[in-house]
Amino acid sequence: MLSQSRRLRQTPFTPGVENAGVTAYTVYNRMLLPTLFRDIETDYRHLKTYVQVWDVSCQRSVEIVGPDAASLIQKLTPRNLQKMQDDQCYYVPIVDENAGMLNDPVAIKHSQDRWWLSIADSDLLLWVKGLALGAKLDVQVFEPDVSPLAVQGPKAEELMVRVFGEAVCDIRFFRYQRLAFEQMSFVVARSGYSKQGGFEIYVEGGEHAMGVWNRLFGAGADLNVRAGCPNLIERIEAGLLSYGNDMTMENSPLECGLGKYCAGPDDTIECIGQHALETERANGPSRQIRPISIQGDPVPPLHAAWDLLKDGIKVGQVSSAAWSPDFSTNVAIGMVDAEHWHAGTILEVRTPTGDRRAEVRSSFWL
Amino acid sequence: MLSQSRRLRQTPFTPGVENAGVTAYTVYNRMLLPTLFRDIETDYRHLKTYVQVWDVSCQRSVEIVGPDAASLIQKLTPRNLQKMQDDQCYYVPIVDENAGMLNDPVAIKHSQDRWWLSIADSDLLLWVKGLALGAKLDVQVFEPDVSPLAVQGPKAEELMVRVFGEAVCDIRFFRYQRLAFEQMSFVVARSGYSKQGGFEIYVEGGEHAMGVWNRLFGAGADLNVRAGCPNLIERIEAGLLSYGNDMTMENSPLECGLGKYCAGPDDTIECIGQHALETERANGPSRQIRPISIQGDPVPPLHAAWDLLKDGIKVGQVSSAAWSPDFSTNVAIGMVDAEHWHAGTILEVRTPTGDRRAEVRSSFWL
Repeated sequence: MLSQSRRLRQTPFTPGVENAGVTAYTVYNRMLLPTLFRDIETDYRHLKTYVQVWDVSCQRSVEIVGPDAASLIQKLTPRNLQKMQDDQCYYVPIVDENAGMLNDPVAIKHSQDRWWLSIADSDLLLWVKGLALGAKLDVQVFEPDVSPLAVQGPKAEELMVRVFGEAVCDIRFFRYQRLAFEQMSFVVARSGYSKQGGFEIYVEGGEHAMGVWNRLFGAGADLNVRAGCPNLIERIEAGLLSYGNDMTMENSPLECGLGKYCAGPDDTIECIGQHALETERANGPSRQIRPISIQGDPVPPLHAAWDLLKDGIKVGQVSSAAWSPDFSTNVAIGMVDAEHWHAGTILEVRTPTGDRRAEVRSSFWL
Repeated sequence: MLSQSRRLRQTPFTPGVENAGVTAYTVYNRMLLPTLFRDIETDYRHLKTYVQVWDVSCQRSVEIVGPDAASLIQKLTPRNLQKMQDDQCYYVPIVDENAGMLNDPVAIKHSQDRWWLSIADSDLLLWVKGLALGAKLDVQVFEPDVSPLAVQGPKAEELMVRVFGEAVCDIRFFRYQRLAFEQMSFVVARSGYSKQGGFEIYVEGGEHAMGVWNRLFGAGADLNVRAGCPNLIERIEAGLLSYGNDMTMENSPLECGLGKYCAGPDDTIECIGQHALETERANGPSRQIRPISIQGDPVPPLHAAWDLLKDGIKVGQVSSAAWSPDFSTNVAIGMVDAEHWHAGTILEVRTPTGDRRAEVRSSFWL
């Protein structure tokens, strides 16, 4: 059982989520994040077939405003932001001076002087505030009253058009537009933590949250819209990493397979962790994220990393795992040492219910 | 239900906690913190009568080592650390430049060049790392492998003597000694999040955790030792504040009644938030933490702050509340505007099950 308190914050959508029959939560940025409504396979099938509305308020925003905002944002991430347009969203690894991952937010550029970071599960606010104060930068850094609501699934666009109009169709992947809703307007991006397609609505002002929620459900009854949440099976199949699960401060972006989001030697940017990243890139990472399939019956729920073994020696670990009905195998995400990360390598994985045969794959299940 | 995952870290004591029959958890610093074993009143009565062993591994440590460690620690807190001895623990409010509370850890001084902060529920690590990097300080900042175990209750000293020897008796309040345990030695402090007396053992190295746990239970059977956890009723009676519940970044130490831990104009320290604190101290805070009693039957569990009203106008909020069997009233902690914070003031509190009569008290229930 989860004990609730003020510290584990409810969201402006919690009344809707509760009314929709949520059956389990996790805690993410000290906020409730639904994890289950019916059962995980029913939720999964529905997400892949219809459209779901997800309360992802826990993707708290860090707002950075001021004359030094653009240079601070570039310092924060090894991704080159020089060509980023004012209507773009970038997935940006955030690393410390050792290139250890601190968070992997989506950056939303309002203008050179105003940015949001829509964050994963760590207090990125404190890192950015601390850096800005320590380096005496001319910025304000704070958590605005922004609660993202995701609309995900094959019918997402159809539902969004009914509420926000045809302009929704013109939004390209990882771009956003500010669209009218009653007397307000909200940032609407084509993004989200599934591979089924969809949008995220950045609802500004908690008092407007249930209005948006109710409009979506009112407009989508014939599309079989339901309350949902990020689905463990679907996100593993799609290779969507989870900060805190599949990567931590102990891992570099290169280990996480995020090298393509890190500037190379030809880029003329200055960022934290640059030297550590260049050194690691020159030598190659010593371990890396891999898709792993695990043989046998459905695996039990993973509560802590499972060791990956070769001839009894630890050569990596599995950090997320679930049974996939569509691929009739256990799908998993693991971090594997370089000597054993080649596709087709057979390893053993130590689960709480015994050792299983595991295979390193060349790609996720797409 | 709480969905578990690697991200919500288990602790080195989790096997002991599970074996002892834990029935509910909260999530604290992304780690499991037990909240219930039998029922809250049984746990409460046992804590006040015997001795409990608490897995408080979630009080993660931030270690600060290096030539600039002492000056950085003093920058972090408005408490004057000039007279702090190498065997002392200090409760230290940590604030930002606006004097907003970021955490309220216990600082443990190993030497001028090496400190631990045993933290409340926010990523203080990122604040300290960000500050140190931004200001180019010569320190290392990291989370060491330290898992505190609390031994609390009237029989705590008797149990601790059996495991760590008579030296335990010489440890004064908020002091520590490094005491031998098998081939290791651990920091043992007279401290803990209850008013029943007791100790905290800072177990270094997760592999030693269950050894300490098992020794305590083996030695204390006749003392009726049980696994326990911070008890909501007992901590409210005692006026022990909870970061994230009773105070947040929106509150200053003065609002939290922590002025006695903040240096005054005669102190010659330099710290973050000093100017904001001095201004607030000159004018007096506009609201402050107060003990509140709430009339009637046991209140429902508090999941979000409850408004305090005077003639229908909001004049504060209740952030923690529970029924107290020993005082036959609902005990609560609230933040009340200056015009209404005097002892004896009668207010209304808006609970999910209706409005109740509430009274501002002069002191907690000690």
